Amino acid sequence: MKSIVIVLKAIMRALANLCKLFWNNKVGYLVFILKKEFITQLRKGEFHSFGKGSLLGIDSIILKAKYISIGINSSFGNRMTLTCYDSIQTPDQIEYYTPSITIGDGVSIGEDAHITCINKIVIGNNVLMGKKVLITDNAHGSSKLDVLDIAPMSRPLYSKGPVVIEDNVWIGEKASIMPGVHIGKSAIIGANAVVTKDVPSYTVVGGIPAKIIKKVNK
Amino acid sequence: MKSIVIVLKAIMRALANLCKLFWNNKVGYLVFILKKEFITQLRKGEFHSFGKGSLLGIDSIILKAKYISIGINSSFGNRMTLTCYDSIQTPDQIEYYTPSITIGDGVSIGEDAHITCINKIVIGNNVLMGKKVLITDNAHGSSKLDVLDIAPMSRPLYSKGPVVIEDNVWIGEKASIMPGVHIGKSAIIGANAVVTKDVPSYTVVGGIPAKIIKKVNK
Amino acid sequence: MKSIVIVLKAIMRALANLCKLFWNNKVGYLVFILKKEFITQLRKGEFHSFGKGSLLGIDSIILKAKYISIGINSSFGNRMTLTCYDSIQTPDQIEYYTPSITIGDGVSIGEDAHITCINKIVIGNNVLMGKKVLITDNAHGSSKLDVLDIAPMSRPLYSKGPVVIEDNVWIGEKASIMPGVHIGKSAIIGANAVVTKDVPSYTVVGGIPAKIIKKVNK
Repeated sequence: MKSIVIVLKAIMRALANLCKLFWNNKVGYLVFILKKEFITQLRKGEFHSFGKGSLLGIDSIILKAKYISIGINSSFGNRMTLTCYDSIQTPDQIEYYTPSITIGDGVSIGEDAHITCINKIVIGNNVLMGKKVLITDNAHGSSKLDVLDIAPMSRPLYSKGPVVIEDNVWIGEKASIMPGVHIGKSAIIGANAVVTKDVPSYTVVGGIPAKIIKKVNK
Repeated sequence: MKSIVIVLKAIMRALANLCKLFWNNKVGYLVFILKKEFITQLRKGEFHSFGKGSLLGIDSIILKAKYISIGINSSFGNRMTLTCYDSIQTPDQIEYYTPSITIGDGVSIGEDAHITCINKIVIGNNVLMGKKVLITDNAHGSSKLDVLDIAPMSRPLYSKGPVVIEDNVWIGEKASIMPGVHIGKSAIIGANAVVTKDVPSYTVVGGIPAKIIKKVNK
Repeated sequence: MKSIVIVLKAIMRALANLCKLFWNNKVGYLVFILKKEFITQLRKGEFHSFGKGSLLGIDSIILKAKYISIGINSSFGNRMTLTCYDSIQTPDQIEYYTPSITIGDGVSIGEDAHITCINKIVIGNNVLMGKKVLITDNAHGSSKLDVLDIAPMSRPLYSKGPVVIEDNVWIGEKASIMPGVHIGKSAIIGANAVVTKDVPSYTVVGGIPAKIIKKVNK
């Protein structure tokens, strides 16, 4: 077994050295961009609107894109989950929703983002997000007693309210933006923060739940 | 160089348009499900038991599945790390463990989950987890002085106790469930929370370390 | 449609059973290692130095590796983002930086890590990181008023100071290490913590911002 591994490793090394003849940073970057170009061209027709110069990521899960509008020059990291739900079958009935996601111009969404909507999510222009950010306008049911005795997946989805993120907001890595939240212009959301309440413009927040760390006076 | 990129982009676009003839949301979903079906059929035999209707995710790292039991109709997101360790070689000796993971029926585990076990992890029926959740019953050594002078990877794994998650628990995105914790029925764990102590049934917790936000009285 | 799905699923099952003849845990592990071997051989030449026995992960984004030194026997999880920036074009001008990342021997970096540098990041020997860890020595601009009115992506990158992580530090899953931070020898950083200030040696910290939970006296 060990000698097979050694032989296979040597083959790998030879293969890698062969590939190196055609490979360098620029080729890698080109392949990266072309993959994004391909997936964008393949799927952009599904969206309500999809602006020029915007690029989707690879290995993404995109559901019901017909409810999603994307501006120009916005970019999306790989492995994004971007989902709208217009109906959910619970054991008792079908629930209907009217979702809408609007993403502005020049928005940059990092890898492994998760944006999920049954109501309304608005992301302004030039919003910048780190990796692994969650934005949701809904939850699996309220926390009332009769709901808690149901399996979470069978609880009807519930939206406390729309999420609005204004222009120039910068959202740190692994932050979570919860339902019903309004984040004002040029706010900064710290890494790993959980935003459960409105954030005023020109404010830095952090923590769980996110609290104001700094206000920048005009 | 720039003109090569333009030509390659045009080729990508043509290729994407060709693929569009055969592609739509339903085809995408079908490919997604068939990939999961394939990986499930390939690997389910490794598990101690694997219930009907359960589906593994793609690009997962699964180690020592013979210690893992999975109920019916449970689903796993992509890029999951699901690991049991029955022995670890430290510089001085080999440590042995008797791991066991039991996952119930109708459980839904989100993308990028990490579940790792040397002792015992029990996940009840209909537990719902967001993405990027960690559940661990072990740590790389205690925090005693003689241990801290060893490289963390060489510290013997240490379990403070089993992790038990009862039925209908809902675990928010990016939450971490730490060793020795018991989470009662129908509890809700907030996004990005770190659960270090027991959580009573019908309770909502959040923060680091997770504290009770709401108790729902029976 | 439904019958097509049933037929396709049956084909998948047959295919999986065929693959099973050649597949088992050891084969899976071998494929995993060989993929890492290949990508390592392909890209190690780009680094300033790359020690023997170190292995890169799959599906990683690595930029300007010429500023990165890696010791021996260090391993990197899949889907890592490891980036140095030596210049950034803002709307007004080009900003120049002199980045340098030094990673020691026996370091283990988990899946989905994000390490990004414009100044200096030093990671000592035998540092162990969980998955989804962020280490950054820079931010998109300060939080001054005139900066906040610019789009975050156009704000000049700003480093509060280098990040230094000493030997034997253990960084928990989903933790974020922020600019200008010095983490002393054998410290333990809790899961989901955000480290914004220096951490003394032989100390356990947790929370947002990370605070001392335990000091281990010598």
